[in-house]
Amino acid sequence: MNIYKKAILPLGFKASGFASGIKKSGKLDLALFYSDIPAKASAMFTSNKIQAAPVVLCKDHLKKNKIFKAIIANSGNANCFTGKTGSVNAQTTARILAKTLRTNLKSILVCSTGIIGKQLPMDKIINGIPVLAAGLSKHGIAQAEKAIMTTDKFVKEITVKFPIRQTTVTVCGIAKGAGMIAPNMATMLAFIFTDANITQKALDKALKMSVSDSFNCITVDGCMSTNDSAIVMANGAGENKAIDEKNNFEPFVKALGIVCLKLARMMVADGEGATKFIEIKVKGALSQAEAKKAALAIANSNLFKTAMYGENPNFGRIVASVGASGINCKEKDLKIKLSDLKKKDIKIEVALGRGKSECTVYTSDLSPEYIKINAAYN
Amino acid sequence: MNIYKKAILPLGFKASGFASGIKKSGKLDLALFYSDIPAKASAMFTSNKIQAAPVVLCKDHLKKNKIFKAIIANSGNANCFTGKTGSVNAQTTARILAKTLRTNLKSILVCSTGIIGKQLPMDKIINGIPVLAAGLSKHGIAQAEKAIMTTDKFVKEITVKFPIRQTTVTVCGIAKGAGMIAPNMATMLAFIFTDANITQKALDKALKMSVSDSFNCITVDGCMSTNDSAIVMANGAGENKAIDEKNNFEPFVKALGIVCLKLARMMVADGEGATKFIEIKVKGALSQAEAKKAALAIANSNLFKTAMYGENPNFGRIVASVGASGINCKEKDLKIKLSDLKKKDIKIEVALGRGKSECTVYTSDLSPEYIKINAAYN
Repeated sequence: MNIYKKAILPLGFKASGFASGIKKSGKLDLALFYSDIPAKASAMFTSNKIQAAPVVLCKDHLKKNKIFKAIIANSGNANCFTGKTGSVNAQTTARILAKTLRTNLKSILVCSTGIIGKQLPMDKIINGIPVLAAGLSKHGIAQAEKAIMTTDKFVKEITVKFPIRQTTVTVCGIAKGAGMIAPNMATMLAFIFTDANITQKALDKALKMSVSDSFNCITVDGCMSTNDSAIVMANGAGENKAIDEKNNFEPFVKALGIVCLKLARMMVADGEGATKFIEIKVKGALSQAEAKKAALAIANSNLFKTAMYGENPNFGRIVASVGASGINCKEKDLKIKLSDLKKKDIKIEVALGRGKSECTVYTSDLSPEYIKINAAYN
Repeated sequence: MNIYKKAILPLGFKASGFASGIKKSGKLDLALFYSDIPAKASAMFTSNKIQAAPVVLCKDHLKKNKIFKAIIANSGNANCFTGKTGSVNAQTTARILAKTLRTNLKSILVCSTGIIGKQLPMDKIINGIPVLAAGLSKHGIAQAEKAIMTTDKFVKEITVKFPIRQTTVTVCGIAKGAGMIAPNMATMLAFIFTDANITQKALDKALKMSVSDSFNCITVDGCMSTNDSAIVMANGAGENKAIDEKNNFEPFVKALGIVCLKLARMMVADGEGATKFIEIKVKGALSQAEAKKAALAIANSNLFKTAMYGENPNFGRIVASVGASGINCKEKDLKIKLSDLKKKDIKIEVALGRGKSECTVYTSDLSPEYIKINAAYN
């Protein structure tokens, strides 16, 4: 299993990015990801009751269709809380792109990220689509991954390659953070491309397993977004012996798991205003769910996060969050370990003394910079 | 019903405060509240599973005893996560005070607030007790209310007087905030004294009702403390016709409700780093509990709070928090009103369009000052 710290698109995938003008800064804001061969897709979305128009569209297409050709994504505008106009705009985007790419409307997925409650500037998107289509290439991923960024400070990319007999399977992932990051999921977009030949059932299962231990284990500010989407496209161009739940499933899940976890960790490292990367392991729980509940309660505590920012070993705040998390812990059984707070990477270990299950979550500290970024963002 | 913006102790109550040295700053840190006449008491405590030693002691005394003489409270140290030594220290405090006041051990209540996980400096408390007892007076309340402060910037005090036939009943409350403030309850101590003659059942019911709409409707940082206590003592010195659940209950609940709500609002106004006082009303809910759930989700959203700090009408963050709160809302039914964000007092109204119930919660914004205070607090 080889890991590369950059996005290397698998066989049969192309991408492009364009500065359409949605972002007033003139930065890249429109991305296209394309598979030459019709691909299977699997996706997980935010569990927020308010869902952006593109999330609704994707769910509909994924329900009604089995093969996919492209994902179009814009940053700078979330197309959320935009009513019927918002839905029509997402549909128009898909329709025009389908026409441009000469493919089926339902083989298109649409994603948006950015400000909530404003209508998309459709003229800019409509003008951008032919440019995106014309610009598709293997190396276009470098522009595409920049075009999905909002407050991100660096691109999040990773590629894993592993063999199945004589063939090599590639799993490549890119993602954007950086605020409104909470489990289930975050204001994140994660796109993963693989040339693996894999059954739909195995792909769905692998994504669910990988997201559960990665994107659903990170939190920056405990704020759940309306647009979160993690989408994997598998086009089979690798021509490997088919992966199903019984054959070659393990190495594929391992590769996908690495991609998701690395992207998730990069999101936390780039959390708005983050000065620390904090890994919180809760062990000795009755179940993994219980361990996760306690770990996320600590990770989402503003008092804990500010203490980490201040390099202040105030473990009372850890105790208080665990106690407030709703799990049935006892003071006398709690054991807490903190690594050196002066370092950028911090590890916290909490033993509950109740059972044998554990869970690790990842978070950043809360700094004045987070407030600066979010007081102004509009 | 007359409202006074200061603490006027009711008949039969005395108080004192002392700088015992628990706080290294030399500020007041030990308070005593005393009733000449044995008083009934009722109390509500944090629902955090980790409870400070004094909370455990108070619960025990309130269970086993019916009449109370005094409350002793210290700031600067929470006596929480302090194990058996912590329990013994709380008991020792009560025992020495009982002896000094020549009263029953179980008629003493003990409260602590401050840093978690450090043992109380018992020598300072033991030395302080005789000074406190000797200093008891009507006007001592001015020192006592300062002695319970931690990061509070101002004292929180209120008095309400109302007539029952020819007699006047006084309800006087004092409290401390100012961080780790979340419902159920906050890192707050609230002490309420009344000379009302009232049955135990009516007193319990009135406190429960009043706390539900006040201390349990405020949040500064969503962090639930281990020490929160709201205690009311009623000594009957007013000699009014007895209040029970059927007679004169309404004016008493009204007075107690005003005292609790004013104290709760003062806590929010003095929330760590607060530059705004924000009132969030959620209406059109199926139940009051649903309205409260949505309102608290907004109030605890860091993105919402930073937007308020930045006077930034980013209503998308309100939408996202309501959607993430777990209530079953629909985008098309949501209506949001924001008052002028340039002012210090901000009102947010969210209509869910589901039913007829409503709830109002109170919160502050999230500012760099909050981080400054909490990064350093130890």
